[in-house]
Amino acid sequence: MRIGVSLEEAQEMLLQKANMVEEGSVSLMGALGRVLSQNIRARENLPAFHKSPLDGYALIAKDVEQAKPSHPVALEVIEEVRAGFVPKQKITPGTTIKVMTGSPLPEGADTVIKYEDVKRTGNSIYLSFPLKPGSNVIYAGEDVKKDEIVALKGTVITPSLVGLLAGLGIAEVPVLRKVRIAIISTGDELIDPAKEPCPGKIYNSSLYNLAALCGELGADPIVMGIVPDEKELISGHIVKSLEAADILITTGGVSVGDFDVVQDALRQAGANMIFWKVSMKPGSPILAAEKDKKIIIGLSGNPAAALVTFDLIAVPVIKKMMGLNRRMPPRVTAVLADNFLKSSPQRRFLRGKLQAINGTHYVKLTGEQGNGILKSMINCNALIDVPAGSGPLCAGQEISAIIVGNISDTFFEMEKEIS
Amino acid sequence: MRIGVSLEEAQEMLLQKANMVEEGSVSLMGALGRVLSQNIRARENLPAFHKSPLDGYALIAKDVEQAKPSHPVALEVIEEVRAGFVPKQKITPGTTIKVMTGSPLPEGADTVIKYEDVKRTGNSIYLSFPLKPGSNVIYAGEDVKKDEIVALKGTVITPSLVGLLAGLGIAEVPVLRKVRIAIISTGDELIDPAKEPCPGKIYNSSLYNLAALCGELGADPIVMGIVPDEKELISGHIVKSLEAADILITTGGVSVGDFDVVQDALRQAGANMIFWKVSMKPGSPILAAEKDKKIIIGLSGNPAAALVTFDLIAVPVIKKMMGLNRRMPPRVTAVLADNFLKSSPQRRFLRGKLQAINGTHYVKLTGEQGNGILKSMINCNALIDVPAGSGPLCAGQEISAIIVGNISDTFFEMEKEIS
Repeated sequence: MRIGVSLEEAQEMLLQKANMVEEGSVSLMGALGRVLSQNIRARENLPAFHKSPLDGYALIAKDVEQAKPSHPVALEVIEEVRAGFVPKQKITPGTTIKVMTGSPLPEGADTVIKYEDVKRTGNSIYLSFPLKPGSNVIYAGEDVKKDEIVALKGTVITPSLVGLLAGLGIAEVPVLRKVRIAIISTGDELIDPAKEPCPGKIYNSSLYNLAALCGELGADPIVMGIVPDEKELISGHIVKSLEAADILITTGGVSVGDFDVVQDALRQAGANMIFWKVSMKPGSPILAAEKDKKIIIGLSGNPAAALVTFDLIAVPVIKKMMGLNRRMPPRVTAVLADNFLKSSPQRRFLRGKLQAINGTHYVKLTGEQGNGILKSMINCNALIDVPAGSGPLCAGQEISAIIVGNISDTFFEMEKEIS
Repeated sequence: MRIGVSLEEAQEMLLQKANMVEEGSVSLMGALGRVLSQNIRARENLPAFHKSPLDGYALIAKDVEQAKPSHPVALEVIEEVRAGFVPKQKITPGTTIKVMTGSPLPEGADTVIKYEDVKRTGNSIYLSFPLKPGSNVIYAGEDVKKDEIVALKGTVITPSLVGLLAGLGIAEVPVLRKVRIAIISTGDELIDPAKEPCPGKIYNSSLYNLAALCGELGADPIVMGIVPDEKELISGHIVKSLEAADILITTGGVSVGDFDVVQDALRQAGANMIFWKVSMKPGSPILAAEKDKKIIIGLSGNPAAALVTFDLIAVPVIKKMMGLNRRMPPRVTAVLADNFLKSSPQRRFLRGKLQAINGTHYVKLTGEQGNGILKSMINCNALIDVPAGSGPLCAGQEISAIIVGNISDTFFEMEKEIS
């Protein structure tokens, strides 16, 4: 076991040990948010045939090149094709076929004119302007060429990708199985939020928070519940968790006090320690172990500390197991929007919110930065990386931040949120 | 019915008619992604009592103000408290109580020293440095004050909010019911992606794409399937959809051709038309109607056109029905990363991807912009708003874009994605 590693060492050690879960498949209607286990290649052109993008008349452009309002050109309507049907006739000079949105372009035609842009009398249409050849034609393969790779292995399936796969006739999608993440909270002081308050006890937030984070990542949380600070009990839960799950996250019991029993319980469960303590604040007492090629990450009992280390250390591991191409959170250079007056002898991560104002990125602190302050995690989507040995930080200075949460509201209510 | 309205008029007309769904409640473990139907107020302080953030010894700071390595100060350990238990004794000068992470601060104590920072011999501990009063104490209400509002009605429940609600002992959460969105695809040319390819037929992508978008929004899609271009059949499906759903989205059958039957079917179903045609490209033939206070939005049969208008017109309506505070997509000023050489006589929305490079926001076009091009929707998270009457656009010029998709990868692979 290594004691006292850097954040990057901790990430690297665990990423090397993390194994991708196995492959399966899912029907397209249930594929949203899943991760592709194979590259997706188009079996056919999309569209599969030249077609009309609108309701109109297919024709030969050369036939109407002299058309003008004073001298309309007439074409004979030889067929009317409904969408979903195939034209039976071939277009020859002087003739036209009525087509619908999505109709295959009739043989011989090179152009389509909108329904509204012609005058029809009996079996003839009259055009009062010419069209460039190819106008209003969607060519076969215009969207996707046959054999083109439309999505790479490791991609998360978005709504647009669901649409594209549907368009390509792919109804069953190769995906990786969902990662199963067991979560145990240790601590005699913890009670479930559904219980009545009790002197000296605190409501367990981490179990719920971590389960929700796992759900948001697209994994299946297995909530093992609260376990008292007893080595035997914790060890039993560790063994049971690893039977059901691909990875285990615990909270509490990892620092140096008498009742910090997770390390002992891990040894009793037959796990090998990987590291203990990462040089960062908050969350430094984090530990990692391994049993039967499954990773166990022991987070601090302090809720905010647990969440910061979960984001920075556990999430990349889970993303590798999920098969995601992008595992590491992106880093951004931004302007600090507040003062932070403490010095940082140790490397420190401050919880903040990324905001874009008039094209500049700011990170605003999300309130008090104590280890236990849950409120600081609300709206937190960026962790400011303050190097060890830094003095106080001033509003306006440039900082480096790691994006860990949802940045979808970066462009919302900019003025109000930063004073 | 109004024919030919602006995008903003269309949005406004429908937002005025949209009704929020009713209130319910959900257990906290299932609350992720749901929308709060009430403000959440803390019933108690969080934490509920002064407590220790670490395993250590509670003491009176004044007792140890003279401590130094050469003259350690001794304190008598009068009790050892396990986490989750309450100290029985009171601290008086010269005494200390051993506390665990989360233990209530014993009466009389004002400070805690870390377990590792003292030397213990028998019933005495020795301190070789002083501490400021209040060191290592978490005060009651430090995180959340009793009666404080921690989350507003209309907020989407994030993992951090799940954690905070757990910490406050809120196990049952007041939320709005999920919005039920029926989706019908009309068109004789459409077949389901699970079917074998067939001449003249195309795979229906919109139904799948829209269902996935509804799922991503946090709504329940009700997939009604493909209906042929027959007024009676479509009308029957409209009536059935509105019995099951809060809102209905259709695709196809909305332009001016013979077989564009959705308008007739709506009238037959007893719906009143609200508007038809919005001055924008793509997606202009969109229509909206109303029956029994439920909104029906008819999108174009062209997949990309349907999606652009869904994002700009249907999503704000759905968000109002969901009870969200933020309904309208945010707008951002950015630099265009590509040329777009067509003129835009009509207002036009170009599909693009927002990227941040060295602090500057760019929007890169996501490929061919044809009405039917599904590939252009992959990676699209921003729609460039090109005013009517614009000439060609050049890379480097400033544009205004509406953010409609997931911008979580704005900071990923910046260099590679924009040349």
